[in-house]
Amino acid sequence: MIYLDNAATTKVFETAIDAANTAMREEYFNPNATYKYGVAAKKNIELARKTIADAVGAKSEELVFTSCATESNNWVFARGIKNAKGNVVISAGEHSSVYEAATALKNRGVDVRIAPLTPSGTVDENALYGLVDADTCLVSVIHVSNETGVINPIKRICKGVKARAPRALFHSDGVQAFLKCAEPLDGLGVDFYSASAHKLGAPKGIGLLYIKQGVNVAPFMCGGGQENGLRSGTQNTPYIAAYAAAVSQFKRDSDSAEIAAIRAELAEMFVKRGCKIVGDGENSGYILCVCVPGVKAEILQNLVHERGIIIGKGAACAGAKRGNRVLAAMGLSPKEIEGCIRISLFCDTARADAIAAAQIISETADKLRSGNVG
Amino acid sequence: MIYLDNAATTKVFETAIDAANTAMREEYFNPNATYKYGVAAKKNIELARKTIADAVGAKSEELVFTSCATESNNWVFARGIKNAKGNVVISAGEHSSVYEAATALKNRGVDVRIAPLTPSGTVDENALYGLVDADTCLVSVIHVSNETGVINPIKRICKGVKARAPRALFHSDGVQAFLKCAEPLDGLGVDFYSASAHKLGAPKGIGLLYIKQGVNVAPFMCGGGQENGLRSGTQNTPYIAAYAAAVSQFKRDSDSAEIAAIRAELAEMFVKRGCKIVGDGENSGYILCVCVPGVKAEILQNLVHERGIIIGKGAACAGAKRGNRVLAAMGLSPKEIEGCIRISLFCDTARADAIAAAQIISETADKLRSGNVG
Repeated sequence: MIYLDNAATTKVFETAIDAANTAMREEYFNPNATYKYGVAAKKNIELARKTIADAVGAKSEELVFTSCATESNNWVFARGIKNAKGNVVISAGEHSSVYEAATALKNRGVDVRIAPLTPSGTVDENALYGLVDADTCLVSVIHVSNETGVINPIKRICKGVKARAPRALFHSDGVQAFLKCAEPLDGLGVDFYSASAHKLGAPKGIGLLYIKQGVNVAPFMCGGGQENGLRSGTQNTPYIAAYAAAVSQFKRDSDSAEIAAIRAELAEMFVKRGCKIVGDGENSGYILCVCVPGVKAEILQNLVHERGIIIGKGAACAGAKRGNRVLAAMGLSPKEIEGCIRISLFCDTARADAIAAAQIISETADKLRSGNVG
Repeated sequence: MIYLDNAATTKVFETAIDAANTAMREEYFNPNATYKYGVAAKKNIELARKTIADAVGAKSEELVFTSCATESNNWVFARGIKNAKGNVVISAGEHSSVYEAATALKNRGVDVRIAPLTPSGTVDENALYGLVDADTCLVSVIHVSNETGVINPIKRICKGVKARAPRALFHSDGVQAFLKCAEPLDGLGVDFYSASAHKLGAPKGIGLLYIKQGVNVAPFMCGGGQENGLRSGTQNTPYIAAYAAAVSQFKRDSDSAEIAAIRAELAEMFVKRGCKIVGDGENSGYILCVCVPGVKAEILQNLVHERGIIIGKGAACAGAKRGNRVLAAMGLSPKEIEGCIRISLFCDTARADAIAAAQIISETADKLRSGNVG
């Protein structure tokens, strides 16, 4: 993230909060109750679902609201496999919620196979195809890397997997790709696709799982039978409204070519300063991972923060853990990983702001290296 | 619910929404990120956790935030059992999220035993004790019935179960009891306790699971290791803030004796009109289940709704299902169940409003019976 100002100033963010507020005040009622206000709340959930489905090329009935993408990912791994005897294949570039869910399966005796990454950050397709076979029941490949922004060509990979493993269900963690990659969901060929609303500017606490029509999956939670029996629990009406509002506004405000151009310009600046761009595969444009040699990312992060710039040091979700599994899988050394920063752009990041931030980051890094900080 | 006006006018509700808003705007940042704003968001989560823990007699580290009580209940049943060979005992009065989670275990071959209810609506304690044995690994009894408001004496039941089944873990679904029953959690002796924020006036989409210190449980979701490794997924900071705000305000505003007195007065009114109170065990005071003879609850519900009164027809979570499993377990006939309405009181329900609403409900029922509606 390059936040030269407060994130709260973005239009998407404001629109989502306004929608959540309206729903919190006016749709307090239980969407599963039979009285009129309950029915109205339910109707608004369905309107929101249709807005999101239309925006991403899915059918309404294919989208199930969850509390976050971690839930969506865990659901697929915990309940998506019908024949536990089959093997499961994931890429080495998965988000921790997929990686740990696969590890949990492995600990229960499932044959879990991990396909390596290329130095560019995409999954090694040939190696992946070599791991799948007629017994493969689930394959999971992240769409856009949360560490590098690199895009895996999911449509081609899914086709390649299905040709070799016709029984396999294909899942993609689309948290960083949802609305940020142009491909509509129904064209990807995937069986499952996970997304999270807060990556589009809505509040944290709402996500979804796309389940392709015709694919059977056991509910992750059972009870009152909400979400067409697939995800029990009273729905979070305010955040569902916020999700739909964020999707609509994001779609209006985003210009992928513009974001990609800003990212390319920043990348060039960093390369000129002797930094290395991590992940040179095709990129979503929204994430720039930079290896700043001779600098500890954490110190750089704290210093630029004092000047109003928020940058990441690897995925926040892996915050507590040492090292970086994904960057290591791309071949980076521990020393290189220590110097990696993650810059996130948003649909309304202004070019001038981004350039100014990159300038400050570069200068601070130079000072750090020369021991001339402050 | 007796809402003669809009629910949005209650103080607890306003306080919770305000807290959610402040957090949505000012704590947008990822509570697991290492930058300053992330650390601040994390700190506020911990403050909220302590507020709730202190209010209910638990330690902060015993409370894990979930997306709803359905999640909490499912977690206990899916991951709370270490030895799948042991049997599981629940009461016939459980919420659908416990009942269906137990059914899922049964379908996987686990020996699930269901203890009957007394006509008063409490679990039949002797029958329950007769079902538990040395192989029992999990027992679940709802604290306050969501259908009738009847209180199960959890402290005594938990002690009785543990005396007969020392290996058993004891869970109670406390959604309707949390802050509404005076007993502090640490005195109940339970291993697990589920709660949901929206029953206290906070938005729908946040709950918690109390896990007694020293009790080991596998995470329900894995990934980034949030919530002390027990519940991965980026935390819903706004709703966590709203939860704590609702708890504090509810505690200030609630007067159990006053609510119990209003409920008793309503009950008397309905009895005088020839109705039957369902569940004459000790009651939380917040729920009144009335069997209105010769009337279909759904029609009555719709008619009084037009006059600004919202009443339930069984639990909303079971909305789509026919009949009512819990009321049937208390011995009510299908005909009686058809005429059962559920009136919910809140901590700030005014006596005069409640009486006026009950009057309208009674009169409407009389008109319905005489065929003189409208």
